[in-house]
This record gives sequence, structure tokens and C-alpha cells, in this order.
Amino acid sequence: MADRNILITIGYDGADYYGWQIQPDRRTVQGEIQKALRRVLGREIKISGTSRTDAGVHALGQRAGFTLEDGLPTERIATVLNNTLPGDIRILRAEEKPAGFHARYSAVGKKYIYRMKHELSPFDARYYCRVEKGLDMDAVRESASVIKGTHDFKCFEASGGNERQSTVRTISGLSMEETENGYELVVSGDGFLYNMVRIITGTLVDAGRGRTGPSRIKEMLMEKDRRLAGRTMPPQGLYLAEVYYLEED
Amino acid sequence: MADRNILITIGYDGADYYGWQIQPDRRTVQGEIQKALRRVLGREIKISGTSRTDAGVHALGQRAGFTLEDGLPTERIATVLNNTLPGDIRILRAEEKPAGFHARYSAVGKKYIYRMKHELSPFDARYYCRVEKGLDMDAVRESASVIKGTHDFKCFEASGGNERQSTVRTISGLSMEETENGYELVVSGDGFLYNMVRIITGTLVDAGRGRTGPSRIKEMLMEKDRRLAGRTMPPQGLYLAEVYYLEED
Repeated sequence: MADRNILITIGYDGADYYGWQIQPDRRTVQGEIQKALRRVLGREIKISGTSRTDAGVHALGQRAGFTLEDGLPTERIATVLNNTLPGDIRILRAEEKPAGFHARYSAVGKKYIYRMKHELSPFDARYYCRVEKGLDMDAVRESASVIKGTHDFKCFEASGGNERQSTVRTISGLSMEETENGYELVVSGDGFLYNMVRIITGTLVDAGRGRTGPSRIKEMLMEKDRRLAGRTMPPQGLYLAEVYYLEED
Repeated sequence: MADRNILITIGYDGADYYGWQIQPDRRTVQGEIQKALRRVLGREIKISGTSRTDAGVHALGQRAGFTLEDGLPTERIATVLNNTLPGDIRILRAEEKPAGFHARYSAVGKKYIYRMKHELSPFDARYYCRVEKGLDMDAVRESASVIKGTHDFKCFEASGGNERQSTVRTISGLSMEETENGYELVVSGDGFLYNMVRIITGTLVDAGRGRTGPSRIKEMLMEKDRRLAGRTMPPQGLYLAEVYYLEED
């Protein structure tokens, strides 16, 4: 059987993991999946994830790729891995891709969701961030429309991220709406700097509190100074929702 | 200020705890609440819980009592404790009770819920047990009606529980219904033996699979033999939902 270029779609509750990326002596999502592959195939396989989600961040549709030579049929991969993976990591799908396809480099965009609630039940603490009622949603929407578009997002980047060639990104969609018990932010774009979604969320929450607004945000973007933007929201409200590839329908 | 007899209502996600009861060197719900009380009041206070939930079991309305001499007003207890407790334990209410009231001994009944789903997402593994589709719900209902009532429930008791004077209990309500993606069992009664709810659930699931039925269950109850009843379902689907006291409206 020829080498197959496999792409898997993964959902995980990130609360009990030190993020996606494999680390020695720490429980990570990549580490658990590679361990499951080793158990199933009897040898080391390195997988390449699309997004290095941080500790405590969740995924509804993370993607990762690897090369498979063995006879394990592609349609059996999800079931076989799920039988040995912990229940808070699920392989949702496995598919074969053309030779040139790469889980990370072929991605043209991503969608993230940030979930907030006014009151956290004991079952919410891992999955939501607490934000008070009564944000000014008009101010939030106006501020979001300033962030949308193509900008140098250096002011929305935390230190400690990976090296990157440019800090210019395009945010194609950004909305924050009221839900029954809180707020939900949905953002999509061609790429995100380190902690960018969490800082954008913090900035929009600040806008809803009247602490910042459209003209201040224009200034932030111009000044490229992290200290002007809102705080980095905590990881537990963040979900990597989708990864986009051109060839997908 | 005179001694106050305080009753608190507690919700918790039990997945990260070794159950309710305090144990040396292990994270337990009682241990966390007593630690919070110590932090707030500066001294040791022993609380008495209504139900010793097992490791991994959740609570929507556990109760616990303690005596308070300090000036901390009753209406401030929940807020003050919640500020120092981990987010997966929440004090939902604190109230003052008459001197003779006892959180455990004054309880006249309890309600438990057991939650099952056909497919577990990565966010379900801590909160549901997986049970396949297609159980025969008529068989489940008929079997439940045999379990309901006053019986010697020795066959539905696991070993390893606390000492008890009698194994006769009254199940006043028992239903198992289909939900959108699974099943939900609700059971209420005057008291439950060790693992009794999880064994009743296992027996009703067996009935739905055609492996047992009303006449076999009558036999179990008569023979008082644990080996005849269904398996003990895993803890993650179980929720202590309510505790009943006579004087409550």
C-alpha cells in the first residue's frame, strides 16, 4: 500500500491538558494522540497540528496530518484511535488527502469561538469565562467593525509566541452576541497571532464596559503597542471551532 | 451572637474529586469546603454532608450542615466561600435551621439522576455514560415498576459501603426516559444503599437489552443476591439531584 497523507479532525476538552503541543513529562493533546498511534501501529508517528492551542483551550475541529504506510484502512482510523484515547479527546473524522496537502500550511483560515456566562455553575468553570451582564452591545459591535479587516495586529499579540514573518492578518468575520446567559464571540480570519483571539475578546468586553471604543482601537492598531489593547481573557472560554482549506466544499 | 445551625446546598462537578468524604492527601469535596471555611474563619470547622457521593459522582443539590459561632452573616456565607472555593464546587445557598435539625439525619429522602448518551463528545466523557440506542423502553418501564416500592434491596447493594441497620428501603419514584441523544433515569426514595442507584440503572439497562425482566427482578429482590442484579454503572453519569426535608415547602 502506498503512503497515505492522512488528515484527522479532532475535538477535545482542553481543560486537563497543557495545550496541543507535545512536551516532555506533560499531558498534551498531541502527546496523547501520538501515544495512541504508537499503541495501535507499534511505532512512532509524528503528527502535525494546525493550531497550537494553549493549556485549557478547547477544540471542536482541530486538524492534524500524518503519513501512514500501514494497512490500517483510513475509514478505521477514528474508531481504532478513539478506542485507546482518553474520552476528552475524540477523533471526529479521518480522510485521505493529496500528496501535496499539509494540515497546517494548506490551511487558509480558522474560526474561533469565545464563550462567556454571567453566572458559572460548577459545570461551567472549565468551559466559560465569567463576564458581567449589561455590556453595551452597540459599542461592542462598533468596535468589532473597526477590528475587522486587514491590519497589522501587533497590538493584539502577546509575547512568548512562535516566530512569525509578519503581524499583518485579515479578520474576515468578527461578531459578539448576547446568548441566553452570557455572550458568544465568533471570529474567523486567515491567521491569528499568539493570544490574539483572547486579547480581541478582552478589548471588546472593555468596549462594552465603556473603557475603550472605536477611536481608541484605531489608535491601538496604529501604535502597535500591546499595552493599549484589552487584557488577555482566560483560556477556558476559547474553542478552536474550524479550520478552512481551499479544496473543501 | 448565638450558635447558628447552618445548612448549605452545594453543587459540584465531581470528576476531579475522590468523592465527598474527606480523606488525607486526596482532593475531596468535603475537604475543599472545610479548607475554604478554615481560610475564611481561621479555624477548623467540621461539616456533615447528607450523602457520601463516590469519586466522579456529581451533585446538583448536595446538603451539608455545620455550627457557626462567628459574626459571618448567614446571607454572606455562599459568596464568601465561593470566592475561595475552586470553580467546580459552588455553594448554591446557605440558610439557618432550628437547633435540632441535622443535614443528614433530618433528611427524609433523596433524588438522583443518571445520565446516558449514545455518543460521547469530548465534552461529555465526565458527565455521561455511553449506552447504545434501541433499548426496549416498555421492558425498562415494566422492570422499573417492579423495583418501585418498599423492598429489601440487598441484591442492589455493592460491598464496601458503610454499616447500615437494615437493607429495606422505599423507592417512591423511578423512571427512565429517552432524551434527544440518550436516556435519563430519575429515582427518588427514602434512602439508598451503597451503589444502589448505579446498580438499579445497570439492571434497567439490562432489561432494555432483553437480558433481564420483571420476573427475574422479583427473583433478585427475593434471593437478596448481588450477583443476580445488573452491573454497577460508572460514576460519571450519576448526579445527586435533591435532598428532601420534612419542614421544607
